[in-house]
Amino acid sequence: MKANTFLYDRIASEIEQQITQGVLRIGDRLPSLRIICERYDVSQSTALQAYYQLEARSLIESRPRSGYFVHRSPKKHLPLPGVSAPGQTTGGALHEVISRVYQDMGRNGAIPLSLGVPALELLPVAKLNKGLLRAMRSLAGSGLEYEQVQGNADLRRQVARFYSNERQTLTEEDLVITSGCMDALAMSLMAVTQRGDAIAVESPVYFGILQLAQSLGLRVIELPTHPQTGVEVDALKEVLTKGQVQACLLVSNFNNPLGSLMPDEHKQEVVRLIQHYGVPLIEDDLYGEVYFSSERPRSCRSFDDSGLVLWCSSVSKTLAPGYRVGWVAPGKFKEEVLRRKLYHSIAGTTITQEVIAGFLETGRYAHHLRGLRHTLQANALRYTRAIAEYFPEGTKVSQPQGGFMLWLELAEQIDSVALYERAMRQNISIAPGNMFSLQDQYRNCMRLSYGMPWNEKLEDALRRLGKLIM
Amino acid sequence: MKANTFLYDRIASEIEQQITQGVLRIGDRLPSLRIICERYDVSQSTALQAYYQLEARSLIESRPRSGYFVHRSPKKHLPLPGVSAPGQTTGGALHEVISRVYQDMGRNGAIPLSLGVPALELLPVAKLNKGLLRAMRSLAGSGLEYEQVQGNADLRRQVARFYSNERQTLTEEDLVITSGCMDALAMSLMAVTQRGDAIAVESPVYFGILQLAQSLGLRVIELPTHPQTGVEVDALKEVLTKGQVQACLLVSNFNNPLGSLMPDEHKQEVVRLIQHYGVPLIEDDLYGEVYFSSERPRSCRSFDDSGLVLWCSSVSKTLAPGYRVGWVAPGKFKEEVLRRKLYHSIAGTTITQEVIAGFLETGRYAHHLRGLRHTLQANALRYTRAIAEYFPEGTKVSQPQGGFMLWLELAEQIDSVALYERAMRQNISIAPGNMFSLQDQYRNCMRLSYGMPWNEKLEDALRRLGKLIM
Repeated sequence: MKANTFLYDRIASEIEQQITQGVLRIGDRLPSLRIICERYDVSQSTALQAYYQLEARSLIESRPRSGYFVHRSPKKHLPLPGVSAPGQTTGGALHEVISRVYQDMGRNGAIPLSLGVPALELLPVAKLNKGLLRAMRSLAGSGLEYEQVQGNADLRRQVARFYSNERQTLTEEDLVITSGCMDALAMSLMAVTQRGDAIAVESPVYFGILQLAQSLGLRVIELPTHPQTGVEVDALKEVLTKGQVQACLLVSNFNNPLGSLMPDEHKQEVVRLIQHYGVPLIEDDLYGEVYFSSERPRSCRSFDDSGLVLWCSSVSKTLAPGYRVGWVAPGKFKEEVLRRKLYHSIAGTTITQEVIAGFLETGRYAHHLRGLRHTLQANALRYTRAIAEYFPEGTKVSQPQGGFMLWLELAEQIDSVALYERAMRQNISIAPGNMFSLQDQYRNCMRLSYGMPWNEKLEDALRRLGKLIM
Repeated sequence: MKANTFLYDRIASEIEQQITQGVLRIGDRLPSLRIICERYDVSQSTALQAYYQLEARSLIESRPRSGYFVHRSPKKHLPLPGVSAPGQTTGGALHEVISRVYQDMGRNGAIPLSLGVPALELLPVAKLNKGLLRAMRSLAGSGLEYEQVQGNADLRRQVARFYSNERQTLTEEDLVITSGCMDALAMSLMAVTQRGDAIAVESPVYFGILQLAQSLGLRVIELPTHPQTGVEVDALKEVLTKGQVQACLLVSNFNNPLGSLMPDEHKQEVVRLIQHYGVPLIEDDLYGEVYFSSERPRSCRSFDDSGLVLWCSSVSKTLAPGYRVGWVAPGKFKEEVLRRKLYHSIAGTTITQEVIAGFLETGRYAHHLRGLRHTLQANALRYTRAIAEYFPEGTKVSQPQGGFMLWLELAEQIDSVALYERAMRQNISIAPGNMFSLQDQYRNCMRLSYGMPWNEKLEDALRRLGKLIM
């Protein structure tokens, strides 16, 4: 994989040189992908990667059914948003716009840039349907009977196999299947906290985590977070040192909405800290499979030997949101989590667990993820290019290395809730920034999802959205 | 339906007369069902009902593949257990035997008289599988997409239609779909109580309710309960008057494990009381469809106009335990319940909701329930007959008018946990009585499920179980 990175970088550099030297001029058509493949003796995906790179740097553009062309607009560099600086209070209320955004999302015809899952077109519907038929036939009772409380044993075996490597071991006994990742987070929070406790989270952070924490009577401390490297470890250390939190909940890989990725050293240090202070870490790793580099990033869990990390994930963001299949490896809190699961819902849906088990076992999941990553990486680059082109000067945008969210910081005076209203009148749905904090901040920010197939309609939506930002 | 009741009673009386007058003698073969149908001009099911009645009174017995015969043993009347008299404390711990019973239930070859669901043989597997195929094809995205938080709109419409009649209206807007009935109870309890609150329940009561309450930090007040008419209304009135509880949770119809059925006047009075004291009532009505009389019993909700009743049910005990489809009509607490649902698990499994919606819409559910009720009623009578025959003198047994549980009270000195151990060595699994209380009582009681197809193996298991009770 490292070799590939090198190759597409090299191809991109050569073409960039030809453009800057005037060998290729504005409007010129680039060699077809087939020709690139032959010329450099590389695979189609490597050739595509090279073009994506160039596209992201606004050097070239793709025209549907025509190919790639040298771009008409000058190269424009988009700065990153700054490190967040949330307030120190633990109170605050969630903006009522959340329910508005939710309701509007289902509105027919609206372009859902506020979407929290990949669009259906990116999911392997037909293959999952075949799996459903197989599960119906293979399961005794066709899935009518209760599944084990801990979850389908095959599924736990397959998840364990999928995530076990030289750096972490995971066995079927370590895992509890849940009804999606939110259920895993809820069970974990209920297992390790009491009403009135405080938890530390990134900021901005997925509003669902804030809502869940509030409904469990937990106070929330939002921590400064870097758009690339995630939570500021020093800030986390401070609240731990002061004994201000009873648990941490971090999205270690491709945090929603920032897209930040904690470097291994940060993960290691965070695990060292929580071990030192004996504070459980709930690790929300549901975007970890959607990485754009050559390797799946590690989890905090893989650095832990204390059992204090409760590692949560699901297939909801990559495969089948409506199947409600997630899991948690709750470490030393397994009995507590299992009990909550039993008391609250006895067991998860039987048949969808079996389908996912089969999808993992046959290698279909790994195959699907390869395609999904390519698509989403290309989308991220196309969005970035379009934003550079259509959004006002001074727009800052995250550079996610995975996931399917962009975080934008607009000029100070922009109110993204007002922008939301204007955009909805044009049938474009965005997620205003202040949904992602209890501190009434990020008003000039917004989250855009690139989890949809790229097309002219999307490009047009981004163009129109850019014009609305005044 | 009323006419039928009369008919099978009349047929049963005539045959009883022939037996007591010696026209039919011990060991004589009774007329075949076909002949009864012709002689009285009734349907096969009416003829069967008459024979079930006689069987339950130990006047006749069925011999597999041979027909019905006048019984060899004298008629034996089984007394009812007394009204329960639980202690007044709210503390207490659950017997550790629960997890033992759970684990043993999965043991291969054990006869699961401790079962909490009808056996697979009583469920319409093939028809549900057809529904699954249909749902896969009809759903946009084949069920991969998130369902609405409130639940599948078709399913809510069908449930509303199924339960609406001249005595209660229910609309799709009143309902929130849940992941089975326990999830409905959990959401309801979280919506109307706070940690430290107390709730009033029947006694004995399903241990899952006790576990859930404890895990939510709720104190539990167990109320005296009549084996036929359910919770003692005066006792409930007393705790309400004293302001001792913040919510009530009652299984109004065919309580598990007692099988008690609250008469309409009791339901009406309970609703009047909770309205007077402004205390929410969570009504667990998941056995209501399994009635043995001519009509579905009413719910407490049908007497309420205040919105204080949160009515919970599911298809887990009648159709598809592993589908995890239940619902709650939360009355005035709808927003609170919806929020909990969203925060904890976003939505339920998409495809199984669609299957159940179709099953209701096409009338298949009503059809299936008719057959299930017959089978379970016949089973209840057969169990009662077998217990009368094989269990020691003095055994008391409930006379459920629905559901699929029998509650037995044995002689004072019997320890049902020790009995459980002895029975497991013979591969028979029972549910010891002290699982159903926090007050360390009902040690000489047990719950037996009759939710399995009747056969000689079952009869033999009851015979062996009877011998073990010394």
